[in-house]
Parts: sequence; structure tokens; C-alpha cells
Amino acid sequence: MTNFFSSDFTLGILGGGQLGKMLLYETRKFDIQTIVLDPSAEAPCRIACNEFTRGDLMDYDTVLNFGRKADVITFEIEGVNVDALEKLEAEGKKVYPSSQTLKRIQDKGVQKDFFSSHEIPTAAYKKCPSKKAFLEGLQKGEISLPLVWKSTTGGYDGKGVAIIKNMDAAEDLPETECIAEDLIPFKNELAVIVARNPSGEVKTYPVVEMEFHPEANQVEYVICPARIDASVAEKARKVAEKVSEAYQHVGLLAVEMFQTEEDEILVNEVAPRPHNSGHYSIEAAFTNQFEQHLRAILDLPLGETESKAGGVMVNLVGEEGYTGNVVYENISEILKLKGVTPHIYGKKITRPFRKMGHVTIVNADLSEARKIAEEVKKTIRVIS
Amino acid sequence: MTNFFSSDFTLGILGGGQLGKMLLYETRKFDIQTIVLDPSAEAPCRIACNEFTRGDLMDYDTVLNFGRKADVITFEIEGVNVDALEKLEAEGKKVYPSSQTLKRIQDKGVQKDFFSSHEIPTAAYKKCPSKKAFLEGLQKGEISLPLVWKSTTGGYDGKGVAIIKNMDAAEDLPETECIAEDLIPFKNELAVIVARNPSGEVKTYPVVEMEFHPEANQVEYVICPARIDASVAEKARKVAEKVSEAYQHVGLLAVEMFQTEEDEILVNEVAPRPHNSGHYSIEAAFTNQFEQHLRAILDLPLGETESKAGGVMVNLVGEEGYTGNVVYENISEILKLKGVTPHIYGKKITRPFRKMGHVTIVNADLSEARKIAEEVKKTIRVIS
Repeated sequence: MTNFFSSDFTLGILGGGQLGKMLLYETRKFDIQTIVLDPSAEAPCRIACNEFTRGDLMDYDTVLNFGRKADVITFEIEGVNVDALEKLEAEGKKVYPSSQTLKRIQDKGVQKDFFSSHEIPTAAYKKCPSKKAFLEGLQKGEISLPLVWKSTTGGYDGKGVAIIKNMDAAEDLPETECIAEDLIPFKNELAVIVARNPSGEVKTYPVVEMEFHPEANQVEYVICPARIDASVAEKARKVAEKVSEAYQHVGLLAVEMFQTEEDEILVNEVAPRPHNSGHYSIEAAFTNQFEQHLRAILDLPLGETESKAGGVMVNLVGEEGYTGNVVYENISEILKLKGVTPHIYGKKITRPFRKMGHVTIVNADLSEARKIAEEVKKTIRVIS
Repeated sequence: MTNFFSSDFTLGILGGGQLGKMLLYETRKFDIQTIVLDPSAEAPCRIACNEFTRGDLMDYDTVLNFGRKADVITFEIEGVNVDALEKLEAEGKKVYPSSQTLKRIQDKGVQKDFFSSHEIPTAAYKKCPSKKAFLEGLQKGEISLPLVWKSTTGGYDGKGVAIIKNMDAAEDLPETECIAEDLIPFKNELAVIVARNPSGEVKTYPVVEMEFHPEANQVEYVICPARIDASVAEKARKVAEKVSEAYQHVGLLAVEMFQTEEDEILVNEVAPRPHNSGHYSIEAAFTNQFEQHLRAILDLPLGETESKAGGVMVNLVGEEGYTGNVVYENISEILKLKGVTPHIYGKKITRPFRKMGHVTIVNADLSEARKIAEEVKKTIRVIS
């Protein structure tokens, strides 16, 4: 086995945002040397890695030259040049998750087709190569309102996704390839993170429950474990494992799902990386998702995925009406509450709904944690 | 209140070793800007802070000039120039713990006198200004063998402390001011960490039990909570709180104690900083000691000190007979064990008994955690 610890071994991370930053805590904990590529000079990762390179993640040469300096390459964002990853693999570099996994996920149309061809339960959908084709589909009645519209590429943090209820809204959509999905009435949005290493070891985290902000289409609370029947949780875990098995990914795979009104489980989307729905694990799980991702991509034994206590995660997003140098108002008030840990991502500028940080609340009693989470949400303000 | 988060506020840390490194995880989590001073270009902190300065921690001008660049100054090692800290305080800088606290602790003779004058229970002792005075004291019968010899300054990690059983050993001691302490037969060595902020808020961690390596006089296991009677634990906590009250420190104060055969509690030593006996808290406590130290010195509300689960910490020290580039043998074996998290400090060179890292084992069942800890200890080898 390679000696990763306090050695010359170098991990390359594509993307320098908060997910990369939290992954870097774990590389420091294990004393693994890291290099990070990100387009922003202000990227949260810039001071937590051994070497920071500023560059375009979608540029073939930039990614290729960066990757050649690393022994193992991973990414914290799907928007990276996949051809460069393929070339790196051809040159013998270890890229985890692989270019193939990323190609099957990066484009939401391809992702949906992958679900279908692997009999993974998902909402019915139609791919439309253009806005024109989408509008024609509506006119011909091949697709019908209301529906969920998703841009096949470029979506992130609620961008590129919209619930379309009428023709006016449909006509206002941007020009892009898209998918039109059935709008599923659901009881809960759930997520399960599955870790897999190159040796084939698989570990599954408990099912979490996500509560979305109604306007921003961003997760507001993540609750672990989900407050659902054990049989539904078991079903959700099995579906997530099936998805993981289909992808044969290395590293983490976050599987977002709907629990329908009939307690069916439908897969919404997957992400091949540490995920917002797993942030609670930093404080609550025996092995947090970032350490687990690291274990997985280095082919180390995977850690225990169960929780030490109940966990609720609150996203801290920029308040509407504020853009500029960030101020975390009342942060000392929330520090008075029991079991509260804030995480500040290190972005200097706040904007409406920008993910600026998160707060985890851990408590032996989950309903108590949920109450404190609401108190946190009401108290702290991310303004400028 | 000052806005510490994602702002221009700067925390200065004197010392760049593993304690500083683990403190820096927390400053990154809160996005607090940091500068670090350490004599070694290879200090573990060098890449985790915003600005690293290489320099002598005992040099007046170096510490003064460094401190002037920070808004709040703290230290992770007691061996720093205390006159420079006093000068910084006189210039209006916040130094936590204060120069006064450090002066009362840095010199072990002063520390013992402080215990005596504040009626803090401690082993009987005699201060000797020189080796000559120490040997004369023995000859005159003012002190008697066996005894515990401690150098008043420069002791760290078991250096500067020795159990002296005969005159030959006494004569082999180095030339230095020292104290001669009664050798107390004890059942257990215990420790309690107390946090205190400038507003006077105080929080006390549970009592931990320390098992020492017989040869190196270094802690081998730390067990939380200590497996002792509740009444003894309560007494130990009360003694620690009395010590904390006496010092009026800001930040953490680690209080090491003996539980005598008669269940008396005697204070052995104190350290005004995060402490090896609190490392278990990273995984096991609701608020880890490093986050707590940060909360304390920034006058933020203190966090919950209780544990989410039982925790055992194993120190990883360099194996005897190996000096050179470190290799952590069998680390992947220990990662297979339940609830195991290794921390690698980032020192490239191993030496016999050098503290290279630690491993935490967390388990709902403490005796299970203790068993796994032994397995860890038997399996991993820090060699070159």
C-alpha cells in the first residue's frame, strides 16, 4: 500500500469551494499533501491546501496539467473537464470518482437515462434537445403542466431547476437542452450517501430528511435520521445501494430521493461527491462524510456510518436584499444554544441565497435538536 | 462585539505544533484569520494558517513584533517570552491566557507556590535553587528518597521530570533549579479541562483518566469518562474548578491530578492551553477543546462540554530504535476497527517517544472502546 501519510503522495482536488475546504480538514488530519485548482483567487480552499492553482475547471489543458502533478485526483464539483480526466486516466492516473461515473451524472439527461436503463425508480421524464422542442412538446400534449423543468447542464444550488405551472412560465425559460419531469406529489425528500472504495467495500449512511426553502429551492434543514417509518427508511437505503451498485463509483455517491404519498421511493438526482445532506455527519457520525470520501478514494477501509447522536443541519444562506461584505449577525446568540456548531465557509461577499455556511445541532434527542435548529434559523442573519 | 468571522480580525498563535494545528481547524471552521509564529520551518501549522512566521518564541522582539500584527494573541506552548506578552498587554492587545496566568504556571516552582498560597491540594515539595542545594537537602534529610524531581523550567512531554529512588540517580541529575516532591502512591492519574471566558463564564469537561507509558513518562491512553466513583469524579471536578477560580485564566486550563489511595485529590500540574488529555473531545464531546479555547479567548459563549459517546485516546509516539522519515505501519489495519479516527500531526521525522499523532476510539460502550484502543496500540507502529 502507498504510504499516504506525511509522505510525498499528493492528492489533487478540482474545485476549491466549501466542500473542498471541509475535505481539506481531513487531509490535514491525516497529513496528506494536497493541491487544489479553482478559478477564484478567493476560493475557501486557498489557504488550507499545500498548493493552490488558479484556473478554469472546464479547460482541458488546465485540468490536464494540474492533474499530472497529483497521484490521485478527485473533485468537489461536477463542472470539470471530463475529457481531461479521461486523458489522465489513460496516462495511468487514478481519478476517483472516475470520468465514466462523472459522464453518467454531469448531464442530467444522461443521468435520467442511466436510471431508466438500470431500472432505478425515478419520475417519468422527456428529454428535449432545445427550448423549441420543449414548447412543442407542451403544445402537442407529449408533456403536460405542471412539470419540473431541468436544464441538462449547468444546474447547481437550485439553479437550472424550476417548477413550471403555466405556459407563461414555460416561455420565460432560458434556451437550453432540458428535461421535463412529472411533478411528483411527495411526503418527504430524503437522501442517502453511499461510500465505495476501489476494493469494492460499500458503506451506507442513514437516511436523512431534507426540508427545502420554498422560494430558493435550496435545502434549509437536513435531519438525521429521517423521521420516517423504519420500513420506508430501509427501502430508501436499498434503492440508494442499488444506485451505487449500478454506478460502480469510487468515493461518495449522494442519492436524493422522493418519498411519494404511496411510500414509493423515486430517485431524484445523484451527486458523486460529499454533499450538503451529509454535513451533519461532521459532528454527528462516527465517520464524517469527508473523511469517508478520503478513505474511499485512497482505497482505505471505510469507517462506521452510524451516528453518535441525532443531528440537524441548517444552511446559512445570504439574506435577500443584502449583497456585500458578509456579517453574521447574532452568531454569538446561537453559540449559547445547546450542541450548536457553526461552519463559516469563508466567502467574503454575501448575496441573496448564496450558501455562506451551515450550522449543525447535535442532541441525543432529535426532536430537541430540531427545535434548536429552528431557533438558530430565526436568530442568525447573514447580511452585509 | 467584534466581527471575527470572514473579517479582517486576526488571531495570533505563538507556537506551531500539533496543538496549534488542531486549533487552526477551528479557526478555519469559523473563518477566522490567523498568523502563527514558530521556530521550525517544518512546523505542523505552517500550511494551515493565513501567515506563518519563522522565529524564536523566547525572543522578546520577535514575539513583540509578531503580536503587534494580531488583534488577540494566544499560545499553544508555555515556552514563550512572557515579557513581550506583558508589553503587548500594556499596548492594549488582548493576550489570552494573560501574561500573569502564564507567569504563574511557566515556572514549576512558582506554580507549586501558587497552589500552596491558594490552598489547592498538592503533594508536599521543597524548592531547591540549584543541584547543589538539592543534594545538600538530601544529605541533611530535609528531603528524602524516593521523590519526584522536577526541573522548574524547560520541562515538556516527560522531560524535566524524574522519579529518584537512590543517591546515584540523584547525582546524575542535570544542573538546574528544581523542586523535590513527595512521591505519592496513587490509584489513578486524572485530568479535568476548565474553560473560562473574559465575561467569567466557566464550563468544565468530564474527568478523564490517564494511563502512562511506564518508560517514557508520557500518556499512553486517555479515557473519558474516567472509570472512577461518581463521588471521586465530583471531587476532582470541584478541585479543578477551584484551581480555575484561583487563576482567573481566560481560555482553557488543563488540571492534572492524582487520586491517592485514600481517594484524596492532589493537583499535579496545570497547563493553560488545549491539552493532550482533551484530544478525545474532537470526536467525543459536543464541543471539542480547540473550539472551546477559541470561544473562550474571543469571549464567545462557551459550548457544551459533555460527551456524545465514550472516548479513548491513544498517543502515537515514535517507536524506540527508529529515527528518520516516518512510516505509519498498519494504519489501514486500524482503520478497519470500529469508531477509529487517526490524527497525524505532520512531523516528517520520527524519534523514540516523539509525539507523532494520536488515535481516538469512540463507542457508546466505553469498555468496548478501551478494548479497541488496545488493539490499535498493538497494531500500529510508528517507525522509519
